[in-house]
Order: sequence, then structure tokens, then C-alpha cells
Amino acid sequence: MTIEVGINGYGTIGKRVADAVRAQPDMEVVGVAKTRPNFEAEQAVANDYPLYAAVPERMDQFDEAGIELAGEVEELVQDSEIVVDTTPSGIGAENKSMYEEYDTPALYQGGEDADLVDVSFNARANFAEAEGADHTRVVSCNTTGLSRLIAALEDEYGVEKVRATLVRRGGDPAQSSRGPINDTLPDPVTIPSHHGPDVNTIFPNLDIDTLGMKVPATLTHTHSVNVELTYGADTEEVRDLLEGESRLFVIPEHMGIDGSGKLKEFALDSGRPRGDVWENAIWGESITVEDDELYLFQAIHQESDVVPENVDAIRAVLGTADRRESIERTNDALGMGLGR
Amino acid sequence: MTIEVGINGYGTIGKRVADAVRAQPDMEVVGVAKTRPNFEAEQAVANDYPLYAAVPERMDQFDEAGIELAGEVEELVQDSEIVVDTTPSGIGAENKSMYEEYDTPALYQGGEDADLVDVSFNARANFAEAEGADHTRVVSCNTTGLSRLIAALEDEYGVEKVRATLVRRGGDPAQSSRGPINDTLPDPVTIPSHHGPDVNTIFPNLDIDTLGMKVPATLTHTHSVNVELTYGADTEEVRDLLEGESRLFVIPEHMGIDGSGKLKEFALDSGRPRGDVWENAIWGESITVEDDELYLFQAIHQESDVVPENVDAIRAVLGTADRRESIERTNDALGMGLGR
Repeated sequence: MTIEVGINGYGTIGKRVADAVRAQPDMEVVGVAKTRPNFEAEQAVANDYPLYAAVPERMDQFDEAGIELAGEVEELVQDSEIVVDTTPSGIGAENKSMYEEYDTPALYQGGEDADLVDVSFNARANFAEAEGADHTRVVSCNTTGLSRLIAALEDEYGVEKVRATLVRRGGDPAQSSRGPINDTLPDPVTIPSHHGPDVNTIFPNLDIDTLGMKVPATLTHTHSVNVELTYGADTEEVRDLLEGESRLFVIPEHMGIDGSGKLKEFALDSGRPRGDVWENAIWGESITVEDDELYLFQAIHQESDVVPENVDAIRAVLGTADRRESIERTNDALGMGLGR
Repeated sequence: MTIEVGINGYGTIGKRVADAVRAQPDMEVVGVAKTRPNFEAEQAVANDYPLYAAVPERMDQFDEAGIELAGEVEELVQDSEIVVDTTPSGIGAENKSMYEEYDTPALYQGGEDADLVDVSFNARANFAEAEGADHTRVVSCNTTGLSRLIAALEDEYGVEKVRATLVRRGGDPAQSSRGPINDTLPDPVTIPSHHGPDVNTIFPNLDIDTLGMKVPATLTHTHSVNVELTYGADTEEVRDLLEGESRLFVIPEHMGIDGSGKLKEFALDSGRPRGDVWENAIWGESITVEDDELYLFQAIHQESDVVPENVDAIRAVLGTADRRESIERTNDALGMGLGR
């Protein structure tokens, strides 16, 4: 029995989720929906994904562009056991009633409001809570990156407080309209940024303060993280712990990866599709514990770290595997484990 | 009686210090020294600063370029009551024996090692300690920015611990060889960065951890600062305190200054020479205190925030004014107080 998955949206996240779902032995892509006949729509068809029009009034445009459609998005929703909504922030909320109409459980992305859904999801932290949920939100790239780290530390040492400065990329590589140019923006300038409260949708009782900035870079976000641990730990123990986590990649010193540029180059050289880095990339040399306070730097690939989480959320919602089984299956199918 | 000041180096810092010294009622520029006859050397002469060759073997080059020299740097050192060494990092150390030979007290910049000197200096924090010192180091731009802030908080509330992430500009606007391009580099990747220990040259007993990063921006450094205060304070009180400090510019919300670009534009529009921002520029909206923990963002103009500190260090070393008098005189002469 394969799980029949529909994907609404075929942009930065949607196309990656489609490929990741297709790679799973227990899943199948029913089709993908797209609003406009752009290059991504063409590639969806070239990749043999049945393509559905997300806006029925625009079906003519696909016709004129010579792109074959399989139907309208409502048909896709009807024919799917579960839908992954990867549409831009706010559009997922507009689509909710459609999923309810066809009684199809839906996953949303982190740009949607936490109030929209029954549960916010991170595979490492709260897999079991999503079982049977009609509406599930896979938290954002930054929240995913923080949650994976916190979950490992919380399980082993307990966490008293987290303070993180998120140095965010100005835009994705293809977002030609974004900035800043030659600037460093406190963004938001008020404190805390929304990321801390968002992490609280996964860890409700966690004491966490986050500060956000934006810089003229496109490749990854980079976090400067401080964690006060409850129980004593030293640098080597914490490093061992993090190295044992399947979705944390502790960059070894000898690799000479000094920033996002070399990290992405390494991922491309490793044959990762689109050069994706699904793991948190933590600089090994940066891991420092003194007086129960941990500091580290990590890079978060905003385009892809949520992809394995979406795959796991499918099994979590439908109850077809437990956390350990699902994460292992997803990892094996994708080839998780950079540098291993 | 005016203080006769020699300035060795006429680059980013030296040219600014020369202008700032010239603006003081109690000081006079004996001359400036330069290694090469570049555009800055030409402008030194155009600005009526007697120009000395920092490398006597290269006097011919100045001659060939048609730039008139007043002599060699040793003559400048001999004729000056005090020398401000603004040469690149490491060159100051090489010059030390020359200053000793002529028994001329010297100021160095923050790129030199703390061990080179008798005292590391910040006007707000430890003015009096420099009196009579032969060798005094005006701490770096980042350390100056942190020290001004910490001094104010330490005096009023006491400081338990400081944690700061320094998002550093990749290079100055004119440093065409610097990077990164489209990258965010943990730099240094190890923790702490040298900035924390450097702040300890000013506050020996302070508990401070700093993390450094580099980004593709040239206009300012930007700090994400966390301070645990010893005694209770609320957001408004701390803001009032910071607004009362003459070298902290708390950016009012209504100005719409969202980053370094608009900050520099405002400084240029305000008629500041070279668009300099001598003050720490602290975003008002970012000042947040909860449970005795303060967070804020501040921009540090790496080319100019140490300029008034160099001026004060001259009086501190020679004992011609106390802290309050010197800071007030320097501020008045320069026109400190952006937005006031």
C-alpha cells in the first residue's frame, strides 16, 4: 500500500518535496498544482508529475504555453490521501476550506499562522503529536533548525534557556527582487523576533529569545546560538551527542568549510540534488561549552531543511510509522548524512 | 598652550584623527606621515598638513609624484609632544622603538596587541588610567562600541554577563580586495572571538562572551547584544540611560532608519565629515529588558568611532584635562550628537 500524496505548489519547497516523496518506497506523487505556466511548470511535466491548475481561470494560459494539464487542483485534492500545501505564505490559509471540503488531511508550511492548524510539527521533537491531525504545519526552516538542536539537547541535558541571533539570508538565490544590498538590517528591529515564539509551538515551555537580522547573502541562514544547559556537560560530550543526530551535520575542521559558499559547493560535489543541505550544518570548531553554557554556529539551508520533515509529517499524520521508523526510512531514501 | 600632535599614518583612521585634532581648540597637527604618494598623500598636502615620509627610502617616489615633503617621520616624532600611530596592524609595534628613542609618548590603534602597551584606553570607561603612559592603545572599533555601552550599564546597574554576536562588515568601502561575496562566515569560527578578551583589557573582571561573523557589507558592523544586569531595570529606564550618554545615539523609531545604509545617508545629510558616525547607533525599538536581561542592536561605524577616543587619549596621557572636560571639549569641537 503506497500513500497517495498530492502537492499543491511547485516552487522552491514544492518541487523538492515532490522529488523527496517520489523517492520514498511507501509513497507516490498523485500530482502537483501550479498557478502559472512558468519554467517550473514545464519541468513538472518533463519530470512526469501530473500537473494541475491551481487557479482554474488560468487553464488557458497553460494551454497557450503548450503545457499539458491533468486537471484542476480540486481534482488533485480529491484523489489524494493527503495534500502537502507548499504555496506562498498566506495562500495555505485560503486553501484550508478546500481541503476540508474533500476531507483530505493537509500539511502546511511554516509561513502559515500556527493558529491555522491542529499541530505544528518537527519530526525529531514531536512526531507523535501529529497522528490523525486534519491540519498540520511543518515549521519554518529556521524553527526546524532550532528545534532539531534543542530536541537533542533537551533529551540529554535539559535546556534552561536559549538565546539565538539569526543572521538571515536576504532572499533565496532565485528571488531577484529581494535585498538588502550592502547592508545589515536588524529584521525585525524589535526583540524577540517571531522565531522564538514559533519554536514555542514545538516546545511550549522553553525559555527562548531570538534576534533576527538580514544580510546580503542568498545561500543559507546562519545562527549564532547560546544554550544554557540544565545538567553539566563538556564540549566533547556535546559534540559527540550532536554528531550522533542524523539530521545534524557537524562540519569537521579538516574540511575547510568556512562559510555557506563552501558548504553548498560541498553539497553539490556530493551529488545532492540541487545542492541541498537537508541537515543543520554545525561548525565543529564552534561547539564550545563552559559553565554549562553552549555556544555554536550553524548554517540552515532555507530551501531544503524542511523537505525531510514534510515527508515524515505525511507518515505521522496517517499513522503509518513511528518516529524512529519514519526518520530512518526518509533518511535512507534521500541519502541523508553529508560527509558520512 | 596647544598640544603639538604628530600623526603617523594617513589612511582610514589617520586622516580622520588629523581633522579631529585640528578641530580641537587645545591642539595642533605638527604633521602627518605616509608611506606612499597616493591620493591620500596628495590630499594631506592639499589640506595643509606638513607631510613626512614614513619610509625614508621612498622619498624619491614623493618627489617624482610632485608631492612636497616636510621631512622624514623621525623628524615628525621628534617635533611632536605626542604621536598618534594610525598605521596598519602590526606596524605600530615596529614603530615603538622609534617613539622610545625620541621619548615621545605614543597612541596605538586596536589592531596592535594589548601587550605592546602600558594601558588600553576607552574614554568613557577608563580615562584616568592613561595619565603619564608612554604607550597607550585606543581599543578597536568593536571594543570601543561595546565598552561605551558596558560602561554606562555597569555604572548604573552592574553587569553580570555580556553575550554579543558581532556581525562584521567584510571590509571598509575602499578595501576593494576584501570579501566575502554572497556569504556569511563564522569569523572566527572558534568561540569566543578575540573581542571579548579585548573588552577585558578595559573591564578586567567582566564576564563576556563574543561571537564574530563576516558578511558582504561595508558600511558598519552590527552587534546583537545581550546583557544580564545585576540590578533590576525596565526597558524605559535603560533607554533613558542610554539616551543620556553623549556617544550613544539611540535611533528614534520615527526616523525610519532600518539599517546601515540609511544610517550613513542620515550622517551624510547631517553634514558629518565623510558621513562619519562617531557614536554607537542603537536602534531604539530594539532596546528590550525582561527579567534583568537587556537585548539591543547597535551599528558601529568601523572607520570613525575611535576618532573621538584618540582625541581624548591625547589629553588623558598628557594629563591636560579630566574625563568629563575632555569628552565635552572633544564633542563640542566635533559636533557630536547625531539627531540632537
